[in-house]
Amino acid sequence: MRSAESASSTRRDLFGLLACARLTAFEWRAADAGRATSYEDKVVLGRLAVGAFTQFERLRDRLVELGVDPWDAMRPFQEAIGEFHEHSRPADTVEALTKVYVADSILADFYVAAAGEVDAETRAVVEESMADSGHAELLAERLRAAADADPRLASRLGLWARRLVGEALSQANTIAGDRATLAALVGEEGVEAMFGCVLDRHTARMRTINLRD
Amino acid sequence: MRSAESASSTRRDLFGLLACARLTAFEWRAADAGRATSYEDKVVLGRLAVGAFTQFERLRDRLVELGVDPWDAMRPFQEAIGEFHEHSRPADTVEALTKVYVADSILADFYVAAAGEVDAETRAVVEESMADSGHAELLAERLRAAADADPRLASRLGLWARRLVGEALSQANTIAGDRATLAALVGEEGVEAMFGCVLDRHTARMRTINLRD
Repeated sequence: MRSAESASSTRRDLFGLLACARLTAFEWRAADAGRATSYEDKVVLGRLAVGAFTQFERLRDRLVELGVDPWDAMRPFQEAIGEFHEHSRPADTVEALTKVYVADSILADFYVAAAGEVDAETRAVVEESMADSGHAELLAERLRAAADADPRLASRLGLWARRLVGEALSQANTIAGDRATLAALVGEEGVEAMFGCVLDRHTARMRTINLRD
Repeated sequence: MRSAESASSTRRDLFGLLACARLTAFEWRAADAGRATSYEDKVVLGRLAVGAFTQFERLRDRLVELGVDPWDAMRPFQEAIGEFHEHSRPADTVEALTKVYVADSILADFYVAAAGEVDAETRAVVEESMADSGHAELLAERLRAAADADPRLASRLGLWARRLVGEALSQANTIAGDRATLAALVGEEGVEAMFGCVLDRHTARMRTINLRD
């Protein structure tokens, strides 16, 4: 049982992390949309960017309601999240879509690991901030079709996804090292156990869309 | 009185132009958000980008309802609109916000000039696609405050706004030359008369926000 003060720090860090992740995802997805050469691709990536921004706004509003300065809550995560994106620049739209699929799924995994440790209200905010992620099914569908049609692409995307998961776990490790509040959320077995679980789920997802991990 | 066929071409070109303008504005505003150095600026520009994308989606959906391929309707305007943005890259957030204010106001002027020439249903779609532009007041407020606080900035922004309006009219001229449907919308006095009107309104707006034209 956590103290009220510790619950409030946890909430602040959790919402700050997710808000920073969503705002940054908006920027990178929008930039990927800008680089896309067809209107169709621009619009798919633009929609994903808009979804991320709307989720960011919800989280920001909840931080403000809690009396927390949203920028102060987000700032500790800016560098790690920025580095994840800097180190994973998609070469084309299909890599950009794979990145959305992989990164959003890992965020969801993290949430599953953390959900048991937070109060019901916090859980509701996080769930709401992930609600638009119904696009995961559509993305999986599209990536599976692309992989099935072209084995060389499937192999390239498999390698790309592995790089993404490695980069995500590396930055997650930095964040967990910096923020005891968040490290505490992933359970008694600690960060390594959660990483094992994330990797297992990632491998299973890659199989579902016919990418070799 | 126009024929049904000509009314349908006009609608297609008008919605195609606006859809292309909105999707492109999304990309550039989002890129400006990405370049902004403070969270506050990122979020203001991100919100404007999201507004432009939502308006694009409405116009695209109306084109689809009319049985028109939206990309085909947008493509004729891609080059002129792209060049407007290429030739007007903001140096910082206040220039980016000035650009949103100037460009959206000119689009609104064009609409005022064209509104009398289209049927009520078309007018309703265009009005809806401009509805979120309620941000104009907020932008004007913010730019006026910035100009009042710093005369050198006011002078820089005045020059910047003049460049923007020149670039916008130059691309509008290209579009009017290419699309007789749209040239016909701006009335019997022709494109020059409309440009005079746009320039007068622009000058009046610049005075309102204390920028010298």
